[in-house]
Order: sequence, then C-alpha cells, then structure tokens
Amino acid sequence: MQSSLEKFSFTYYHRVGYAETDKMNFLHHSNYARIYENARWEFFRHIEIPYSKIELSGILMPVVKMDFKFIKPAYYDDDLNIEVNILKLTNTTINFGYIMRNDNNEIINQATTTLAFINEKTGKATRTPEIIKSRFIKEFEFI
Amino acid sequence: MQSSLEKFSFTYYHRVGYAETDKMNFLHHSNYARIYENARWEFFRHIEIPYSKIELSGILMPVVKMDFKFIKPAYYDDDLNIEVNILKLTNTTINFGYIMRNDNNEIINQATTTLAFINEKTGKATRTPEIIKSRFIKEFEFI
Amino acid sequence: MQSSLEKFSFTYYHRVGYAETDKMNFLHHSNYARIYENARWEFFRHIEIPYSKIELSGILMPVVKMDFKFIKPAYYDDDLNIEVNILKLTNTTINFGYIMRNDNNEIINQATTTLAFINEKTGKATRTPEIIKSRFIKEFEFI
Amino acid sequence: MQSSLEKFSFTYYHRVGYAETDKMNFLHHSNYARIYENARWEFFRHIEIPYSKIELSGILMPVVKMDFKFIKPAYYDDDLNIEVNILKLTNTTINFGYIMRNDNNEIINQATTTLAFINEKTGKATRTPEIIKSRFIKEFEFI
Repeated sequence: MQSSLEKFSFTYYHRVGYAETDKMNFLHHSNYARIYENARWEFFRHIEIPYSKIELSGILMPVVKMDFKFIKPAYYDDDLNIEVNILKLTNTTINFGYIMRNDNNEIINQATTTLAFINEKTGKATRTPEIIKSRFIKEFEFI
Repeated sequence: MQSSLEKFSFTYYHRVGYAETDKMNFLHHSNYARIYENARWEFFRHIEIPYSKIELSGILMPVVKMDFKFIKPAYYDDDLNIEVNILKLTNTTINFGYIMRNDNNEIINQATTTLAFINEKTGKATRTPEIIKSRFIKEFEFI
Repeated sequence: MQSSLEKFSFTYYHRVGYAETDKMNFLHHSNYARIYENARWEFFRHIEIPYSKIELSGILMPVVKMDFKFIKPAYYDDDLNIEVNILKLTNTTINFGYIMRNDNNEIINQATTTLAFINEKTGKATRTPEIIKSRFIKEFEFI
Repeated sequence: MQSSLEKFSFTYYHRVGYAETDKMNFLHHSNYARIYENARWEFFRHIEIPYSKIELSGILMPVVKMDFKFIKPAYYDDDLNIEVNILKLTNTTINFGYIMRNDNNEIINQATTTLAFINEKTGKATRTPEIIKSRFIKEFEFI
C-alpha cells in the first residue's frame, strides 16, 4: 500500500565532503553515524514529526545500539543515496535500518540503529510518545 | 601468563571534549568510532606495531564491521577508560573489542570492530601481514 | 553584469545536524570550517570546475589562512543560508568570503579562507591553474 | 617570574588520529578548532579553573572570533605540541593564542580565539567572572 510504504521508507542524499575523507581516500567510517542520523531526522521531518518537536515535548531519543556493515568504500564527491526504514517500533524503542548506495547504485553500507525514549527531566526511560505511536498504530504491534 | 595478557589487552584514556558533546549534554554517539580507533592504534603502538608502519608496508586496514551498545551516557570532561582487546585474529581479518568505563568505573559502552587487510595498490583483500601474525602466532589459530 | 555576478557568488544551504550541536545548544564553532568548505566546492561544481577535477590534474588546494567572526549562534535544525564569494584571486592563491544567515535572514557568521595551490607530487607551491585563471581572467588582476 | 609565566602559558599534546586526516594526507583544517579548544580547557584545568566549573556557575564561554595561519601540514600519527597563551583579558572577553609545533619542533600553525562570557539563563553578554579575574588581576588591565 503506497501510503503505508511512504510512512516506512525515505530516501536521503549525502554528498561526501573533503573533511569526511581520510588518508586511505575513503569516507572515514566514523562519519556514517552522523550521516544516518541526518537521514532519519530528515525522514521524520518529511512525515511531519520533526525531531526538534519531540525534544520540545520533553523527550530525548538517544541511540542505544548501532551496527554497521561496510561493503564497499565511498569516495570524495560521491553522491550517496540512503534508504531509511523503520524496522521495528515497540512501546519503548524504535529501530531504523539504512541501505546506502553509491552513484553506480551499488549497495556500499548497511546499518541499523535502535533509539530509546527518555524523559528529559528525570533522565529515565519513558514510553514511545503518542505523536509517533499514533502515526504507526496500524503497522506495528506495540509490545 | 602476563606477557600474553599484555599482548591482548590495553587501556586507553579519553577526556570528553566540548566539541564532542551535543544538546542532550551527552558525548554524541558519532564520536565513539573515532575514540575506539585511537584506542586500538595506541594499543598497536604500545606493542610496537604502529599502524603507520603497516600502511608504509603497503597494507591498509579498513573497518568492515562495527557495532556499539550504549549503556550509559558520557558527559563533558569525563575521563573515560577504554579497555581494548583483540577478540579474534584470522588469516584475513582482525576483531577488536572495547569496554568503556566512566570515572565511577561503570561500564558505559561496549563495542567491537572488524578490520580487513587490503593491498594499497590493487585495492583487493590480502592476508594478515606477517608483522601481526608472528606477534600472535601462539594465541590464535589462523584459519 | 549578471553573468559576472554568477561567477563570483553562490548560495549554499546547510541544515544544522544534531551531531553538530554542543551542550551550549549551539552549532559548535569547529563545524563552520567544514560547512564553508562544502559551500565553496559546491560553488565550484556549479561553475563546472569541480574540485575533484582539480585534484585529478595533480594540484591540491590546502587552506593557508582562515578567520571567523561569530555574530549570533546557530541552533539545531536551523536551515542556514551561506553566500560564498571569491574575494581575491592572484597567481598563487584564492580567497573566499562567506556570509552565513539564519532562518530570520540575520547575518550570524562571517568568514574568509585563503587557499594555495600545491603540486601533489613535489608538495611545493605552484601557480593558479589555467582552468581557474581562464574562468576569471576578466575579473581579477593576476599579480 | 616563574609563577606568573605558568599562569599565562601551557603546553598541550595532541596525537593526530586517522579520522582527522584527509585524502591530501594532511590533518584536515577543520580539526584545529577542536584541538585548540581541548588545549585551552586543559590549560584551565591545570590552573584549577576547569571550564565545567565555569558553566556550573551559570556562565557560558562561546567563541566570538577565531583565526588560523597554516604554515606546514601535520600528518597522521604526528605528536603535536601546542603552546597556549592568554594574550588578552578584559572585562568582557578573553583572548587565547596558540603555537603548534610538530615532532621536528617546527612551527606549523598559529591561531587565536576570542571568547565572550554569556549568562546561561538570559543568553546575554556578562562580565568576566571573578574566578578568572582574580586569578589574573595583576597581569592584565581590566578595561
């Protein structure tokens, strides 16, 4: 279903900058976490739940787990295409998946990140906010 | 055996800088990959196999896999203690494990990275160089 | 003259990412150099002199001077507007100027960077390459 | 006078990490601001005015001006030596100077940064806090 797919998936573009390269000529591996973070929040802006709005409501979303698989290098000036998906959404966490492709449409990196919800004031874990839950109520079982 | 343990494990320290913090007040998650990279090469310098020397021999060691588990946040000015271990060493890859502790000796992050060996000229995978293999010949089965 | 103005000036946009913020809630000052670098090379791509092509011709353009004036802070999610200009072009250096504005069209940062040209093989300074010089031959006195 | 000199000057060391290099093989110019920031706050920790303590008192110290002169490149694994000085201290700003040297004791970079004092709550400029002023009352005219 089109409308459902749009909710789950988003494409983000990133041009590899010179500062991101290393002496191996590669996009240095420490940059991927930042690129994927930009991709997921651009996705959330697109579905009209900007992350800044979530924080304004008193909820922070720190990363609790992340993993990366580096398949091929990316190089300076590459115009990377990142497909972001919501893989899982529970009452306490959200899990994003990323597939990065280069100019030749080759998959060069795959990654996932799990984020928790915490109350800004108490610093304690809290439940998935309604603004997110209501958006995906049909697609995920909230357990 | 003491000498063997020294080969496998090393402690690295990192002071959290202001540039590494984010508006959540945490050490931003994108910094851990860089900190662990510094930790593993400081370990290799300590065992007298500086990474710069490996590159001079024509071999590059890109990261092919990495994963992180964020247990507790780190904050500005924290003096972090990182224990680096070699978890696995084969004929084609090396796998490092990291345990990060804060000033209160609490484990706050755990991670692993797998690095491959590639020939700088051809860009193709190559076998674990002798300089590393000979150092750990007794401790690992090179399969 | 329109065509001339287009050569000298370019507008680049940058969305402030979470990783770029600090515990003060500001876009951390160490990020501006990278943002302006992206801006100037996007400008050069626009005028069909991509920096990657300059490097392929054996010339590197390291920064030799830079200065920044921070007028107002930028914040998470701000959509920044950066005007890039070529301020000066000589036989040996190129000088860029940057004016950064926030969503309210307030000038929040001003900067300049001077870049030299060096021969990749010798590592020595070299003259401004023809590809750049011919493009701006009417606008600057090459002394 | 020895005790006075110690107040004004401090030496900080930085090992160039792989993530900081670029495809030119240089320490990328965007890293210097972060390195100098670490240097000045290590200096302040040394004179027992840790920056974290200043922030706890409700005062933030954003950078308002900075400039850099790149004399020679730094490379991967270089053990850099940074001399930090307080160049000027007024009733509203503090100005630091930095001289960076490489392993061969060559001066490779020089920079200055000016920081202001702002009240965390109001976001407005405030006067140099007593904790800093009292420390340097003999050395600077507070105008």
